[in-house]
Amino acid sequence: MAPIPKTTRQWLLASKPTDMPVLSGSNQTFRLEDTPIPAVKDGQVLMKSLYYSNDPAQRGWISRDIKPGRLYRPPVNEGDVMSAGGLYEVVESKAETLKPGTIVLGYVGWTEYAVADAKVLIPVSTDALPEGLGVTQYLGAFGGTGMTAYYGLLEVAEAKKEDVVVVSGAAGATGSMVVQIAKKMVGCKKVIGIAGGAAKCKWVVEELGADACVDYKSGDFEANLAKETGGDAGNVDVYFDNVGGEILDFMLTRMALFGRIAACGAISGYNTALEKTAGLKNWFEVISMRIQIKGFIVLDFRARKGAREECIGYLIQGVKEGKLKIGKESEQVVKTKFEDVPKTWVKLFEGANTGKLVTEVV
Amino acid sequence: MAPIPKTTRQWLLASKPTDMPVLSGSNQTFRLEDTPIPAVKDGQVLMKSLYYSNDPAQRGWISRDIKPGRLYRPPVNEGDVMSAGGLYEVVESKAETLKPGTIVLGYVGWTEYAVADAKVLIPVSTDALPEGLGVTQYLGAFGGTGMTAYYGLLEVAEAKKEDVVVVSGAAGATGSMVVQIAKKMVGCKKVIGIAGGAAKCKWVVEELGADACVDYKSGDFEANLAKETGGDAGNVDVYFDNVGGEILDFMLTRMALFGRIAACGAISGYNTALEKTAGLKNWFEVISMRIQIKGFIVLDFRARKGAREECIGYLIQGVKEGKLKIGKESEQVVKTKFEDVPKTWVKLFEGANTGKLVTEVV
Repeated sequence: MAPIPKTTRQWLLASKPTDMPVLSGSNQTFRLEDTPIPAVKDGQVLMKSLYYSNDPAQRGWISRDIKPGRLYRPPVNEGDVMSAGGLYEVVESKAETLKPGTIVLGYVGWTEYAVADAKVLIPVSTDALPEGLGVTQYLGAFGGTGMTAYYGLLEVAEAKKEDVVVVSGAAGATGSMVVQIAKKMVGCKKVIGIAGGAAKCKWVVEELGADACVDYKSGDFEANLAKETGGDAGNVDVYFDNVGGEILDFMLTRMALFGRIAACGAISGYNTALEKTAGLKNWFEVISMRIQIKGFIVLDFRARKGAREECIGYLIQGVKEGKLKIGKESEQVVKTKFEDVPKTWVKLFEGANTGKLVTEVV
Repeated sequence: MAPIPKTTRQWLLASKPTDMPVLSGSNQTFRLEDTPIPAVKDGQVLMKSLYYSNDPAQRGWISRDIKPGRLYRPPVNEGDVMSAGGLYEVVESKAETLKPGTIVLGYVGWTEYAVADAKVLIPVSTDALPEGLGVTQYLGAFGGTGMTAYYGLLEVAEAKKEDVVVVSGAAGATGSMVVQIAKKMVGCKKVIGIAGGAAKCKWVVEELGADACVDYKSGDFEANLAKETGGDAGNVDVYFDNVGGEILDFMLTRMALFGRIAACGAISGYNTALEKTAGLKNWFEVISMRIQIKGFIVLDFRARKGAREECIGYLIQGVKEGKLKIGKESEQVVKTKFEDVPKTWVKLFEGANTGKLVTEVV
């Protein structure tokens, strides 16, 4: 192993973006800085970044539009290290529980090296995973992504066998898990994905097992989606929404009586200033069709004792029974030099990935 | 009593409006027609209109924008008698249960005389009401309006003593009942009304007992409402929404964590074509604050056995205990010639009424 340096590179938030994050120029969103590594105190470890989780939610943490007290976690302020979920290798330890060489999961952020309290870190090992799965799965299927899909679908949306389910962002990290759980584990009557482009839609149907997948980039999107969801009357019992915006607005017209919407994400609007947002127009459908909507954040479930274990157990069972496809096909690991970490992150908003987008720091 | 005529005047839907209903001219919304009164068959009665209920919801029944199967009742089509809740006096009967002279409640519509099956009519009498209350209360507090307020607040929004509650349309028929029930019956911690104009706001506070009422026509509306609802952070546990639109959009920024919204009506948009609607922009608040939204229609509760009796019993108890103010102050009965029935109805959309707007056919 390379000797431990005295300083570490970090990506700091330089300026909250108004729309798409800006990667260079005078108003760039992030800036790279070199800073001394602090001394490791008792109960702490020094660790090195291995992998970062890339999540659309991170865009919210750096939003200009979100007012104080209206976010589910402290916002990232200008001058702060950009926050991210990640996997790190312990390189020096003053904590009995974490030996050097241990791989840990934590929310530390885009810093090549970091000193952190052992108690906020979760040691992880592939031993606990089905054979062939790598440690990066703890950022995706066996991490926050999987928990979002599992609790969002089963507890928030209360999906049942008899339900017609629509999932937007179906080729994305969370959506691809939701599609699989709905179809293969719950056995929902019909599972319809929404994704961008023919290739992704094909993947959602052929690899994930959706009954249909509708391409929102196609000119016939609304007509095609209507055809798959009961025509004029609309028959969708559960809508798992990862995108918000115009697709959500149209989905309001597709819900069955007493249909349930799990509001998980709204990526379509994350890079648009609030005042330029198109807005939901079909609100009356919420009343006339008695639609039930619940916003949720995976943190609420994470805080619940035993929730992580319950979810991981369920998913491992699904993999063992051959129902869930989790593996290389469910993640895209992008080897990235530390100086290019933001570049990999913004791929999220280019619709480039299928499954979980993971940054491997090289 | 005047002799029974051979024909009756009726208001038919002439043309579905795109925005505000049009009362005269070539594209008028309703047209007055004279039509023969059919023979009364066994089990039927002939009855004469006494009072009509005026409800914003009726605008939805004649909307161009609502697609087939997306309304909670059959739409009123062009050429149909305009539908309305009403009180009628039986003038001829071939039904044992309903003697001539009986006053009945029914959804028959704007027809001066009507023949209807006795089984769809509910006989009503002031004997069952607290002293001094007239039969028109069955269209308001002791009818659909009261049930909407009661079930919407207690069952849909699950309002409890410890809740901060906001009610829009607080001076309207439903809103004025919700404010009173929340403050006087449930004893909610803080009840804030939203209404249009200083006079209505004064009425909501002084007569209905709200802790505060914010005037949405005032230039400081948002700042004033923010001040009453916890400042930046927002502290509203329950929002009973009668108006939708921009007020709802702003209210999304005022909800507390896990706040509940009962979506009852959206009068702000009823007279605006869908494509011209501003739309809800603050959707991300639903996710970040885990807001729960439920659309509802009073019909769902009406269909439940004993629900009407339960609600009326609760409200009578409230009146007897001196908690609820229901009476002349909670309704506006407008004496209206039959040829002017639509004119009284459109007052709903002019914000002219406080409490329930009732048409007395003279």
